[in-house]
Amino acid sequence: MNLSSKLLENTVQAFATLPGIGKKSALRIALQLLQTDGQEVQEFCEAILNMQKNIKFCKTCHNISDEEICSICNSVKRDKRLVCVVETIREVMAIENTQQYHGTYHVLGGVISPIEGIGPSDLNIDSLVGRIASGEVKELVMAVSPTIEGDTTIFYLAKQLKDYPVKISTISRGVSFGGELEYADEMTLGRSIVARIPYKK
Amino acid sequence: MNLSSKLLENTVQAFATLPGIGKKSALRIALQLLQTDGQEVQEFCEAILNMQKNIKFCKTCHNISDEEICSICNSVKRDKRLVCVVETIREVMAIENTQQYHGTYHVLGGVISPIEGIGPSDLNIDSLVGRIASGEVKELVMAVSPTIEGDTTIFYLAKQLKDYPVKISTISRGVSFGGELEYADEMTLGRSIVARIPYKK
Repeated sequence: MNLSSKLLENTVQAFATLPGIGKKSALRIALQLLQTDGQEVQEFCEAILNMQKNIKFCKTCHNISDEEICSICNSVKRDKRLVCVVETIREVMAIENTQQYHGTYHVLGGVISPIEGIGPSDLNIDSLVGRIASGEVKELVMAVSPTIEGDTTIFYLAKQLKDYPVKISTISRGVSFGGELEYADEMTLGRSIVARIPYKK
Repeated sequence: MNLSSKLLENTVQAFATLPGIGKKSALRIALQLLQTDGQEVQEFCEAILNMQKNIKFCKTCHNISDEEICSICNSVKRDKRLVCVVETIREVMAIENTQQYHGTYHVLGGVISPIEGIGPSDLNIDSLVGRIASGEVKELVMAVSPTIEGDTTIFYLAKQLKDYPVKISTISRGVSFGGELEYADEMTLGRSIVARIPYKK
Protein backbone atom coordinates (compact mmCIF):
# COMPACT_ATOMS: atom_id res chain seq x y z
CA MET A 1 0.00 0.00 0.00
CA ASN A 2 1.29 3.45 -0.89
CA LEU A 3 0.59 5.88 1.95
CA SER A 4 1.63 9.49 1.58
CA SER A 5 2.54 9.81 5.27
CA LYS A 6 5.22 7.98 7.24
CA LEU A 7 3.34 8.74 10.50
CA LEU A 8 0.21 7.08 9.18
CA GLU A 9 2.26 4.17 7.88
CA ASN A 10 3.81 3.59 11.33
CA THR A 11 0.37 3.47 12.94
CA VAL A 12 -0.93 1.10 10.26
CA GLN A 13 2.04 -1.18 10.83
CA ALA A 14 1.55 -1.07 14.60
CA PHE A 15 -2.09 -2.16 14.28
CA ALA A 16 -1.30 -4.79 11.66
CA THR A 17 0.81 -6.67 14.25
CA LEU A 18 -2.28 -7.28 16.41
CA PRO A 19 -4.09 -10.62 16.09
CA GLY A 20 -6.91 -10.69 13.54
CA ILE A 21 -6.05 -7.31 12.02
CA GLY A 22 -4.66 -7.15 8.50
CA LYS A 23 -3.24 -4.22 6.55
CA LYS A 24 -6.62 -3.06 5.27
CA SER A 25 -8.33 -3.13 8.67
CA ALA A 26 -5.29 -1.42 10.19
CA LEU A 27 -5.58 1.40 7.65
CA ARG A 28 -9.30 1.74 8.36
CA ILE A 29 -8.61 1.97 12.10
CA ALA A 30 -5.75 4.45 11.64
CA LEU A 31 -7.91 6.71 9.45
CA GLN A 32 -10.69 6.55 12.03
CA LEU A 33 -8.24 7.52 14.79
CA LEU A 34 -7.07 10.42 12.63
CA GLN A 35 -10.59 11.79 12.62
CA THR A 36 -11.00 11.21 16.34
CA ASP A 37 -10.59 13.94 18.87
CA GLY A 38 -7.06 14.14 20.39
CA GLN A 39 -8.35 13.69 23.93
CA GLU A 40 -10.03 10.40 23.05
CA VAL A 41 -6.91 9.05 21.35
CA GLN A 42 -4.93 10.00 24.44
CA GLU A 43 -7.40 8.08 26.62
CA PHE A 44 -7.22 5.09 24.28
CA CYS A 45 -3.45 4.91 24.65
CA GLU A 46 -3.60 5.53 28.39
CA ALA A 47 -5.94 2.57 28.85
CA ILE A 48 -3.41 0.31 27.13
CA LEU A 49 -0.35 1.67 28.94
CA ASN A 50 -2.14 1.61 32.27
CA MET A 51 -3.08 -2.01 31.81
CA GLN A 52 0.43 -2.99 30.71
CA LYS A 53 2.01 -1.20 33.67
CA ASN A 54 -0.37 -1.85 36.54
CA ILE A 55 -2.02 -5.18 35.95
CA LYS A 56 -1.10 -7.88 38.44
CA PHE A 57 -1.37 -11.62 38.54
CA CYS A 58 -3.10 -13.13 41.56
CA LYS A 59 -0.53 -14.58 43.96
CA THR A 60 -2.74 -17.54 44.68
CA CYS A 61 -4.18 -18.62 41.32
CA HIS A 62 -2.15 -16.56 38.78
CA ASN A 63 -5.30 -15.15 37.20
CA ILE A 64 -5.07 -11.48 36.11
CA SER A 65 -6.14 -9.10 38.81
CA ASP A 66 -6.02 -5.45 39.84
CA GLU A 67 -5.01 -6.50 43.38
CA GLU A 68 -2.49 -8.92 44.86
CA ILE A 69 -5.25 -11.49 45.30
CA CYS A 70 -7.92 -11.72 42.60
CA SER A 71 -11.63 -11.18 43.19
CA ILE A 72 -12.37 -14.90 42.75
CA CYS A 73 -9.81 -16.04 45.35
CA ASN A 74 -10.97 -13.23 47.64
CA SER A 75 -14.67 -13.97 47.39
CA VAL A 76 -16.34 -15.61 50.39
CA LYS A 77 -18.93 -17.09 48.01
CA ARG A 78 -16.40 -19.28 46.20
CA ASP A 79 -15.67 -22.79 47.38
CA LYS A 80 -11.96 -22.85 48.23
CA ARG A 81 -11.98 -26.67 48.48
CA LEU A 82 -12.54 -26.94 44.73
CA VAL A 83 -9.77 -25.80 42.34
CA CYS A 84 -10.12 -25.86 38.58
CA VAL A 85 -6.75 -26.19 36.82
CA VAL A 86 -6.62 -24.33 33.49
CA GLU A 87 -3.96 -23.39 30.96
CA THR A 88 -4.54 -19.65 30.56
CA ILE A 89 -6.73 -16.80 31.79
CA ARG A 90 -8.86 -17.27 28.67
CA GLU A 91 -10.21 -20.51 30.09
CA VAL A 92 -10.98 -18.79 33.40
CA MET A 93 -13.09 -16.28 31.47
CA ALA A 94 -14.80 -19.00 29.45
CA ILE A 95 -15.70 -21.02 32.54
CA GLU A 96 -16.76 -17.91 34.48
CA ASN A 97 -19.10 -16.99 31.64
CA THR A 98 -20.95 -20.30 32.05
CA GLN A 99 -21.86 -19.28 35.65
CA GLN A 100 -21.89 -22.98 36.50
CA TYR A 101 -18.71 -23.18 38.54
CA HIS A 102 -18.35 -21.83 42.06
CA GLY A 103 -14.91 -23.03 43.08
CA THR A 104 -11.56 -21.28 42.52
CA TYR A 105 -8.94 -21.62 39.77
CA HIS A 106 -5.30 -22.27 39.18
CA VAL A 107 -3.77 -20.92 35.97
CA LEU A 108 -0.82 -23.08 34.89
CA GLY A 109 0.34 -20.72 32.15
CA GLY A 110 0.41 -23.51 29.54
CA VAL A 111 0.89 -27.27 29.37
CA ILE A 112 3.99 -29.45 29.42
CA SER A 113 5.25 -29.62 25.84
CA PRO A 114 8.73 -31.02 25.19
CA ILE A 115 8.44 -30.04 21.51
CA GLU A 116 7.98 -26.37 22.39
CA GLY A 117 10.53 -26.65 25.19
CA ILE A 118 7.99 -26.10 27.98
CA GLY A 119 8.84 -28.17 31.04
CA PRO A 120 7.11 -28.40 34.44
CA SER A 121 9.39 -25.67 35.85
CA ASP A 122 8.02 -23.18 33.28
CA LEU A 123 4.49 -23.63 34.62
CA ASN A 124 2.84 -22.58 37.87
CA ILE A 125 3.03 -26.11 39.26
CA ASP A 126 5.02 -25.48 42.45
CA SER A 127 2.46 -23.00 43.71
CA LEU A 128 -0.32 -25.50 42.96
CA VAL A 129 1.48 -28.19 44.98
CA GLY A 130 1.86 -25.57 47.73
CA ARG A 131 -1.89 -24.91 47.71
CA ILE A 132 -2.62 -28.64 47.96
CA ALA A 133 -0.03 -29.06 50.72
CA SER A 134 -1.80 -26.41 52.78
CA GLY A 135 -4.64 -28.92 53.08
CA GLU A 136 -7.60 -26.70 52.18
CA VAL A 137 -8.14 -28.12 48.68
CA LYS A 138 -10.22 -31.31 48.45
CA GLU A 139 -10.67 -31.64 44.66
CA LEU A 140 -8.79 -30.58 41.56
CA VAL A 141 -10.80 -30.31 38.35
CA MET A 142 -8.49 -30.59 35.35
CA ALA A 143 -9.78 -28.39 32.52
CA VAL A 144 -6.84 -28.52 30.12
CA SER A 145 -6.87 -29.21 26.36
CA PRO A 146 -7.66 -32.80 25.33
CA THR A 147 -4.29 -33.16 23.62
CA ILE A 148 -1.21 -35.29 24.29
CA GLU A 149 0.37 -32.27 26.02
CA GLY A 150 -2.74 -31.77 28.17
CA ASP A 151 -2.86 -35.45 29.12
CA THR A 152 0.87 -35.39 29.92
CA THR A 153 0.33 -32.41 32.20
CA ILE A 154 -2.53 -34.13 34.04
CA PHE A 155 -0.41 -37.28 34.40
CA TYR A 156 2.52 -35.25 35.75
CA LEU A 157 0.34 -33.35 38.22
CA ALA A 158 -1.32 -36.56 39.43
CA LYS A 159 2.10 -38.05 40.09
CA GLN A 160 3.28 -34.97 41.97
CA LEU A 161 0.18 -35.01 44.14
CA LYS A 162 -0.14 -38.74 44.80
CA ASP A 163 0.85 -38.36 48.47
CA TYR A 164 -1.83 -35.77 49.22
CA PRO A 165 -5.46 -36.67 50.00
CA VAL A 166 -6.86 -34.70 47.07
CA LYS A 167 -9.39 -35.99 44.56
CA ILE A 168 -8.50 -35.36 40.90
CA SER A 169 -11.18 -35.17 38.21
CA THR A 170 -11.27 -33.99 34.60
CA ILE A 171 -14.10 -32.12 32.92
CA SER A 172 -16.34 -34.48 30.96
CA ARG A 173 -15.84 -34.77 27.23
CA GLY A 174 -18.35 -35.92 24.68
CA VAL A 175 -20.86 -34.81 22.08
CA SER A 176 -21.91 -31.16 22.48
CA PHE A 177 -25.31 -30.38 23.94
CA GLY A 178 -27.65 -29.67 21.05
CA GLY A 179 -25.10 -31.10 18.59
CA GLU A 180 -26.21 -33.51 15.86
CA LEU A 181 -24.52 -36.88 16.22
CA GLU A 182 -23.79 -37.16 12.50
CA TYR A 183 -21.69 -33.98 12.63
CA ALA A 184 -19.66 -34.93 15.72
CA ASP A 185 -16.08 -35.93 14.92
CA GLU A 186 -15.33 -39.66 15.06
CA MET A 187 -12.91 -39.39 17.95
CA THR A 188 -15.39 -37.57 20.17
CA LEU A 189 -18.31 -39.82 19.20
CA GLY A 190 -16.22 -42.96 19.69
CA ARG A 191 -14.99 -41.92 23.10
CA SER A 192 -18.39 -40.74 24.23
CA ILE A 193 -19.72 -44.27 23.57
CA VAL A 194 -16.84 -45.87 25.44
CA ALA A 195 -17.23 -43.43 28.34
CA ARG A 196 -21.03 -43.73 28.46
CA ILE A 197 -22.87 -42.57 31.56
CA PRO A 198 -25.55 -44.67 33.34
CA TYR A 199 -29.00 -43.19 32.78
CA LYS A 200 -30.64 -42.01 35.97
CA LYS A 201 -34.26 -43.25 36.12
CA MET B 1 -18.32 -10.47 29.50
CA ASN B 2 -17.12 -10.84 33.04
CA LEU B 3 -13.48 -9.78 33.33
CA SER B 4 -11.73 -9.95 36.67
CA SER B 5 -9.72 -6.79 36.04
CA LYS B 6 -10.95 -3.25 35.53
CA LEU B 7 -7.69 -2.35 33.76
CA LEU B 8 -8.19 -5.13 31.23
CA GLU B 9 -11.82 -4.15 30.82
CA ASN B 10 -10.86 -0.55 30.00
CA THR B 11 -8.49 -1.72 27.29
CA VAL B 12 -11.06 -4.10 25.85
CA GLN B 13 -13.60 -1.29 25.75
CA ALA B 14 -11.09 1.04 24.08
CA PHE B 15 -10.39 -1.46 21.31
CA ALA B 16 -14.06 -2.34 20.88
CA THR B 17 -14.76 1.26 19.79
CA LEU B 18 -12.53 0.82 16.72
CA PRO B 19 -14.18 -0.05 13.41
CA GLY B 20 -14.45 -3.76 12.67
CA ILE B 21 -13.45 -4.86 16.17
CA GLY B 22 -16.03 -6.47 18.44
CA LYS B 23 -15.81 -7.38 22.12
CA LYS B 24 -14.28 -10.80 21.47
CA SER B 25 -11.57 -9.53 19.11
CA ALA B 26 -10.87 -6.68 21.53
CA LEU B 27 -10.33 -9.16 24.34
CA ARG B 28 -8.04 -11.25 22.16
CA ILE B 29 -5.98 -8.15 21.31
CA ALA B 30 -5.85 -6.98 24.93
CA LEU B 31 -4.65 -10.39 26.12
CA GLN B 32 -2.00 -10.42 23.41
CA LEU B 33 -0.82 -6.96 24.48
CA LEU B 34 -0.65 -8.21 28.08
CA GLN B 35 1.84 -10.84 27.01
CA THR B 36 3.81 -8.37 24.91
CA ASP B 37 6.98 -6.75 26.15
CA GLY B 38 6.43 -3.32 27.76
CA GLN B 39 8.77 -1.60 25.33
CA GLU B 40 6.77 -2.78 22.33
CA VAL B 41 3.48 -1.64 23.84
CA GLN B 42 5.07 1.74 24.50
CA GLU B 43 6.12 1.97 20.84
CA PHE B 44 2.66 0.93 19.71
CA CYS B 45 1.09 3.79 21.66
CA GLU B 46 3.76 6.25 20.58
CA ALA B 47 3.06 5.52 16.91
CA ILE B 48 -0.59 6.39 17.45
CA LEU B 49 0.02 9.51 19.54
CA ASN B 50 2.73 10.70 17.18
CA MET B 51 0.41 10.37 14.21
CA GLN B 52 -2.45 12.12 16.01
CA LYS B 53 -0.21 14.99 17.10
CA ASN B 54 2.09 15.55 14.14
CA ILE B 55 0.18 14.62 11.01
CA LYS B 56 -0.63 17.52 8.74
CA PHE B 57 -3.04 18.07 5.91
CA CYS B 58 -1.58 19.38 2.67
CA LYS B 59 -2.34 23.10 2.30
CA THR B 60 -3.01 22.68 -1.39
CA CYS B 61 -5.03 19.47 -1.73
CA HIS B 62 -5.96 18.59 1.92
CA ASN B 63 -4.50 15.11 1.58
CA ILE B 64 -2.69 13.82 4.69
CA SER B 65 0.96 14.65 4.71
CA ASP B 66 4.01 14.83 6.96
CA GLU B 67 4.87 18.24 5.48
CA GLU B 68 2.94 21.44 4.75
CA ILE B 69 2.64 20.39 1.11
CA CYS B 70 2.12 16.69 0.36
CA SER B 71 4.48 14.57 -1.71
CA ILE B 72 1.98 14.43 -4.61
CA CYS B 73 1.55 18.21 -4.86
CA ASN B 74 5.31 18.63 -4.44
CA SER B 75 6.29 16.12 -7.11
CA VAL B 76 7.62 17.51 -10.41
CA LYS B 77 6.40 14.34 -12.11
CA ARG B 78 2.72 15.08 -11.43
CA ASP B 79 0.64 17.05 -13.90
CA LYS B 80 -0.55 20.13 -11.99
CA ARG B 81 -3.03 20.99 -14.78
CA LEU B 82 -5.12 17.95 -13.89
CA VAL B 83 -6.93 17.84 -10.54
CA CYS B 84 -8.96 14.86 -9.37
CA VAL B 85 -11.70 15.87 -6.90
CA VAL B 86 -12.38 13.19 -4.26
CA GLU B 87 -14.35 12.94 -1.03
CA THR B 88 -11.74 11.59 1.38
CA ILE B 89 -8.10 10.54 1.58
CA ARG B 90 -9.26 6.95 1.14
CA GLU B 91 -10.07 7.66 -2.49
CA VAL B 92 -6.67 9.28 -2.99
CA MET B 93 -5.11 6.02 -1.79
CA ALA B 94 -7.38 3.90 -3.96
CA ILE B 95 -6.60 5.92 -7.09
CA GLU B 96 -2.86 6.07 -6.27
CA ASN B 97 -2.84 2.29 -5.97
CA THR B 98 -4.07 1.96 -9.57
CA GLN B 99 -0.89 3.79 -10.75
CA GLN B 100 -2.95 5.06 -13.70
CA TYR B 101 -3.32 8.68 -12.67
CA HIS B 102 -0.53 11.23 -12.85
CA GLY B 103 -2.31 14.47 -11.98
CA THR B 104 -2.91 15.96 -8.52
CA TYR B 105 -5.86 15.74 -6.13
CA HIS B 106 -8.28 17.84 -4.16
CA VAL B 107 -9.86 16.28 -1.07
CA LEU B 108 -13.28 17.81 -0.40
CA GLY B 109 -13.74 16.16 2.99
CA GLY B 110 -17.18 14.83 2.05
CA VAL B 111 -20.10 15.67 -0.21
CA ILE B 112 -22.95 18.14 0.12
CA SER B 113 -25.67 16.40 2.11
CA PRO B 114 -28.56 18.48 3.48
CA ILE B 115 -29.86 15.42 5.39
CA GLU B 116 -26.62 15.10 7.34
CA GLY B 117 -26.33 18.88 7.64
CA ILE B 118 -23.24 19.13 5.43
CA GLY B 119 -23.28 22.30 3.34
CA PRO B 120 -20.73 23.69 0.85
CA SER B 121 -19.06 25.72 3.62
CA ASP B 122 -18.19 22.51 5.51
CA LEU B 123 -16.18 21.24 2.55
CA ASN B 124 -12.84 22.32 1.06
CA ILE B 125 -14.57 24.09 -1.82
CA ASP B 126 -13.20 27.64 -1.37
CA SER B 127 -9.64 26.38 -1.64
CA LEU B 128 -10.56 24.45 -4.80
CA VAL B 129 -12.05 27.60 -6.36
CA GLY B 130 -8.84 29.37 -5.32
CA ARG B 131 -6.74 26.77 -7.12
CA ILE B 132 -8.84 27.14 -10.27
CA ALA B 133 -8.70 30.95 -10.05
CA SER B 134 -4.89 30.81 -10.02
CA GLY B 135 -5.22 29.60 -13.62
CA GLU B 136 -2.89 26.60 -13.55
CA VAL B 137 -5.63 23.95 -13.54
CA LYS B 138 -7.03 22.97 -16.93
CA GLU B 139 -9.23 19.99 -16.04
CA LEU B 140 -11.12 18.77 -12.98
CA VAL B 141 -11.88 15.04 -12.82
CA MET B 142 -14.80 14.43 -10.48
CA ALA B 143 -14.33 11.13 -8.66
CA VAL B 144 -17.11 11.36 -6.06
CA SER B 145 -19.71 8.73 -5.14
CA PRO B 146 -22.43 8.08 -7.77
CA THR B 147 -25.16 9.13 -5.32
CA ILE B 148 -27.60 12.03 -5.21
CA GLU B 149 -25.23 13.79 -2.80
CA GLY B 150 -22.28 13.22 -5.12
CA ASP B 151 -24.22 14.50 -8.13
CA THR B 152 -25.36 17.54 -6.13
CA THR B 153 -21.77 18.30 -5.21
CA ILE B 154 -20.63 18.07 -8.84
CA PHE B 155 -23.54 20.30 -9.90
CA TYR B 156 -22.67 22.86 -7.21
CA LEU B 157 -18.97 22.86 -8.13
CA ALA B 158 -19.75 23.21 -11.84
CA LYS B 159 -21.94 26.24 -11.05
CA GLN B 160 -19.24 27.83 -8.87
CA LEU B 161 -16.67 27.35 -11.59
CA LYS B 162 -18.72 28.31 -14.64
CA ASP B 163 -16.79 31.56 -15.18
CA TYR B 164 -13.40 29.87 -15.25
CA PRO B 165 -11.96 28.22 -18.39
CA VAL B 166 -11.67 24.81 -16.76
CA LYS B 167 -12.87 21.54 -18.25
CA ILE B 168 -14.93 19.36 -15.91
CA SER B 169 -15.13 15.59 -16.39
CA THR B 170 -16.32 12.69 -14.28
CA ILE B 171 -14.74 9.25 -14.03
CA SER B 172 -16.49 6.77 -16.31
CA ARG B 173 -19.06 4.46 -14.81
CA GLY B 174 -20.22 1.14 -16.17
CA VAL B 175 -19.78 -2.60 -15.96
CA SER B 176 -16.57 -3.67 -14.19
CA PHE B 177 -13.68 -4.99 -16.27
CA GLY B 178 -13.80 -8.77 -16.10
CA GLY B 179 -17.33 -8.61 -14.65
CA GLU B 180 -20.05 -10.90 -15.98
CA LEU B 181 -22.93 -8.91 -17.49
CA GLU B 182 -25.59 -11.08 -15.86
CA TYR B 183 -24.26 -10.19 -12.40
CA ALA B 184 -24.03 -6.42 -12.99
CA ASP B 185 -26.77 -4.48 -11.19
CA GLU B 186 -29.60 -3.18 -13.40
CA MET B 187 -28.80 0.48 -12.79
CA THR B 188 -25.17 0.12 -13.85
CA LEU B 189 -25.99 -2.08 -16.85
CA GLY B 190 -28.81 0.23 -17.99
CA ARG B 191 -26.68 3.34 -17.73
CA SER B 192 -23.71 1.69 -19.40
CA ILE B 193 -25.92 0.99 -22.45
CA VAL B 194 -27.25 4.56 -22.54
CA ALA B 195 -23.72 5.99 -22.11
CA ARG B 196 -22.16 3.63 -24.67
CA ILE B 197 -18.78 4.46 -26.15
CA PRO B 198 -18.02 4.41 -29.90
CA TYR B 199 -15.79 1.43 -30.76
CA LYS B 200 -12.41 2.50 -32.11
CA LYS B 201 -11.56 0.47 -35.22
